[in-house]
Amino acid sequence: MNSVHAYAAHEADKPLAPHQIDRREPGADDVEIKILYCGVCHSDIHTARNEWGGTQYPIVPGHEIVGKVTRVGENVTRFKAGDTVGVGCFVDSCGHCNNCKEDLEQYCENGHTQTYNSLSQDKKTITQGGYSSHIVVKQHFVLNVSDKLPLEKVAPLLCAGITTYSPLKHWGVKAGDKVAVVGLGGLGHMAVKLAASMGAEVTMLSRSPSKEKDAQELGAHHFELTTQPENMQKLANTFDFIVDTVSAEHDYNEYLNLLRTDGVMILLGAPPKPSQVPAFPLIMGRRSLVGSLVGGIKETQEMLDYCAEHGITSDVEMINIDQINEAYERTLKGDVHYRFVIDMASLN
Amino acid sequence: MNSVHAYAAHEADKPLAPHQIDRREPGADDVEIKILYCGVCHSDIHTARNEWGGTQYPIVPGHEIVGKVTRVGENVTRFKAGDTVGVGCFVDSCGHCNNCKEDLEQYCENGHTQTYNSLSQDKKTITQGGYSSHIVVKQHFVLNVSDKLPLEKVAPLLCAGITTYSPLKHWGVKAGDKVAVVGLGGLGHMAVKLAASMGAEVTMLSRSPSKEKDAQELGAHHFELTTQPENMQKLANTFDFIVDTVSAEHDYNEYLNLLRTDGVMILLGAPPKPSQVPAFPLIMGRRSLVGSLVGGIKETQEMLDYCAEHGITSDVEMINIDQINEAYERTLKGDVHYRFVIDMASLN
Repeated sequence: MNSVHAYAAHEADKPLAPHQIDRREPGADDVEIKILYCGVCHSDIHTARNEWGGTQYPIVPGHEIVGKVTRVGENVTRFKAGDTVGVGCFVDSCGHCNNCKEDLEQYCENGHTQTYNSLSQDKKTITQGGYSSHIVVKQHFVLNVSDKLPLEKVAPLLCAGITTYSPLKHWGVKAGDKVAVVGLGGLGHMAVKLAASMGAEVTMLSRSPSKEKDAQELGAHHFELTTQPENMQKLANTFDFIVDTVSAEHDYNEYLNLLRTDGVMILLGAPPKPSQVPAFPLIMGRRSLVGSLVGGIKETQEMLDYCAEHGITSDVEMINIDQINEAYERTLKGDVHYRFVIDMASLN
Repeated sequence: MNSVHAYAAHEADKPLAPHQIDRREPGADDVEIKILYCGVCHSDIHTARNEWGGTQYPIVPGHEIVGKVTRVGENVTRFKAGDTVGVGCFVDSCGHCNNCKEDLEQYCENGHTQTYNSLSQDKKTITQGGYSSHIVVKQHFVLNVSDKLPLEKVAPLLCAGITTYSPLKHWGVKAGDKVAVVGLGGLGHMAVKLAASMGAEVTMLSRSPSKEKDAQELGAHHFELTTQPENMQKLANTFDFIVDTVSAEHDYNEYLNLLRTDGVMILLGAPPKPSQVPAFPLIMGRRSLVGSLVGGIKETQEMLDYCAEHGITSDVEMINIDQINEAYERTLKGDVHYRFVIDMASLN
């Protein structure tokens, strides 16, 4: 075991603070990674503050990890010391269920191991995330990261990137499709960039006129205010897809009628309370309300390669680790363009 | 114009009673049909009693129509006097929108004309349905009915049959799929028969142990009580599809967790109140909550041909037209196996 520097939440209502955690010696299939950058995802805050319940303290959040390989186990063939790699939202799964066999580890039928606050497959230890100097991960769950892109801007792709890329690919978004994006945060800004890169005609739906300029700079072709009833009426039966990235409580039904026949509304955020959903708008246009959770390892690699090829990265604001508590407050206010990323060199 | 015998609702809270309506002289593209049988659909009751609003009295319900052609217009090539034909839930549509061009007249972007209580495409007259001796319908909206099957049992296929067949085909139900059906009424009993005929492993989900025998006689392979929490827990992540035929208020969320990864819950009934839907069960298994409305004309013909080939009909209870008010009460209590069909000879 190696004791490494980290930042942890020790209680739900206390700021994150320096902490030491143990990382295992790399086993035969393990990759040891020195973490360079770690993105700050809203899930980190939910977990640090025990908003979803079940947080086991002290907990080290962080699942948007980019770093350099330091050591590899004897069975590791895909990586060597010095390689640039990434780690996303999960670090293990059962490996033998139907979903694991189909590269859908995120839906592992026996329960995948998330990167932090999750039971390891040994059913004993609780995982600790990327707000730390090093992490040790099974090679299957380690991603190749191209050095073509600025690495701090790649880190958020490991969660925000794959969470938006996967449903766009799964439901077959293609050139010419009309895609609306709801919510312009970490997920939303990646949804705009990725959908536009696939040739879709992208509309940002927002309650705030102040978002228009930002949306257009990110590649949205249109901007529509959802606060104006005449706008919503005009947009009825318009979109092939609506990508809903909002985690706060909201009304899905406000958007369902904007879908065309056979249109699909994709939920990526998990609001604390359910929404009222009537059958009528679904029945009248054979519309679908669906959800999607990150993406499998194979698809995450495909997404990273796609982003490297198309020059797509996250817009980030760099912080030092001792600014993490302030960053949480600003994230909750939506005061970030669009993802905080921790320069992990600041941990020393 | 021809005045014909019919039965109509004259007010929301009055029994249906004899009535005379005018049917147009068949135009060049029209087929005049002497109605032999007309099924009694729950929508008839909603409309007669103005439960969805917008009922224009007096109204003649009925959209599960089988009859014989009496006269055809000069452009009619597909039918001749004496042919056995059917008419379903709609009798016209714009014919030139994207959906009409793709044989999805049920989702006509300019508003299709339903068989009763609906504005004709002339935007003047209100349609009157099948509780009448004759109906005149554009040939495109008239279906061929095989004489191989008992015609009174074919009538409900025109609504209950196509409403269940269409989503099973659209979402690709195939041999070996696990399909659950919720609600054992007119729609539910057809969903069981059709899904089983496609080779699916069919489970009836019910609150009432008394339905078990019926479900198995219809072809369901399993019967599970939804009132028992241990049952629901056992069934988690089980079904590829759930076909929800219930029109009464209920909780979709009770069923979402029973879907496997990528499973689809299909809403066919339109309860008066929305259900609470949380994002979590949709996100955690990339599950879909969808709706579907009857089927297009081309697909309705396909369904009728499929049913003739596979010997599939509705289970019916025959009534005379003067029993219609009693039949409505029994339908509301679920006291029918599984569709009332009016013998229209009783109208004279």
